[in-house]
Amino acid sequence: MPEFIETIFARRSIRAYTERPVDRETLKLLLQAAMAAPSAANSQPWEFIVIDEIEALDGLRGQLRFGQYNAPAAIVVCGSPETAHNSAGRRFWVQDCSAAIENILIAAAGLGLGTVWIGVYPLPAVVQAVSQELGLPEQVIPLGVIYVGHPAEEKPPRTQYDEHRVYWQHYAPHKRRAKLKNAKHQ
Amino acid sequence: MPEFIETIFARRSIRAYTERPVDRETLKLLLQAAMAAPSAANSQPWEFIVIDEIEALDGLRGQLRFGQYNAPAAIVVCGSPETAHNSAGRRFWVQDCSAAIENILIAAAGLGLGTVWIGVYPLPAVVQAVSQELGLPEQVIPLGVIYVGHPAEEKPPRTQYDEHRVYWQHYAPHKRRAKLKNAKHQ
Repeated sequence: MPEFIETIFARRSIRAYTERPVDRETLKLLLQAAMAAPSAANSQPWEFIVIDEIEALDGLRGQLRFGQYNAPAAIVVCGSPETAHNSAGRRFWVQDCSAAIENILIAAAGLGLGTVWIGVYPLPAVVQAVSQELGLPEQVIPLGVIYVGHPAEEKPPRTQYDEHRVYWQHYAPHKRRAKLKNAKHQ
Repeated sequence: MPEFIETIFARRSIRAYTERPVDRETLKLLLQAAMAAPSAANSQPWEFIVIDEIEALDGLRGQLRFGQYNAPAAIVVCGSPETAHNSAGRRFWVQDCSAAIENILIAAAGLGLGTVWIGVYPLPAVVQAVSQELGLPEQVIPLGVIYVGHPAEEKPPRTQYDEHRVYWQHYAPHKRRAKLKNAKHQ
């Protein structure tokens, strides 16, 4: 197995962190990885708020009912079609920002850091709470919060590869049903 | 620079390919990378159609006005909230599938392969054309087409890191304006 595939498999959602901080050079490296992601027509419809001070972290955590983890840093990835280089960002910003997030997660895994991706958009109440906490203008939309830190839990690398989700050349709508039927008769 | 960061930077959109095919073991490795991506509540709201036969590739290319590249393989990544493990996929499938796509792109870059991500959803005409070509049922939504092949063009690794897109602790709405104002006065 090539090493970078192992890094992709090593990315797991980490929800417990040590107190060791993440230095700013490392956070910048994660942002460099994020902004190496592709975007529709290279529109780069993204902005990032990096939070590594305790008061700001506590404020953010207070808004995230399902994201109260003790990481020493967080990166809030926002869609920002208005600062994008062209209008493609209006339709593709969710996809582009998600690719940027995945790059952060993979880069962090490669550095031995743990991360967890907390979904914000499209949950209106969470979008509003995070926006207010961070002072986001209306046209900057928080897509997700990525906690970053040194892991205090271990999870083995894995893929969840499932051949039932793979089709060749053409979709075969009866594949799953046929399999179930066969299974029943065995 | 760590090697996996270099792999992330090495991912560039490749639009010219050699005739050399991509073997099925390699395509499967890319799908394993895809299905190592995180998804909301681990819902795995995705299905994949892999196309590596010339007739099917030509059919797909015929539907993609902005994606007529000569790659020997394509992976169509689809959202499939109905086969997802839970209802989180209904709201987060675009993000989850985009993370899976980015994993494919990074894994391919690490293997020396080229890729390009062609956006399909949310463009209604393209969604309909691709769905019809592949025989997708209504509840399976093509998000994007990833061409895969051996590159016939070289592009240097890069990030498009832009510090003007980065904020610390809190959004600072006047940062960009202030910078422009200063620039004008210099």
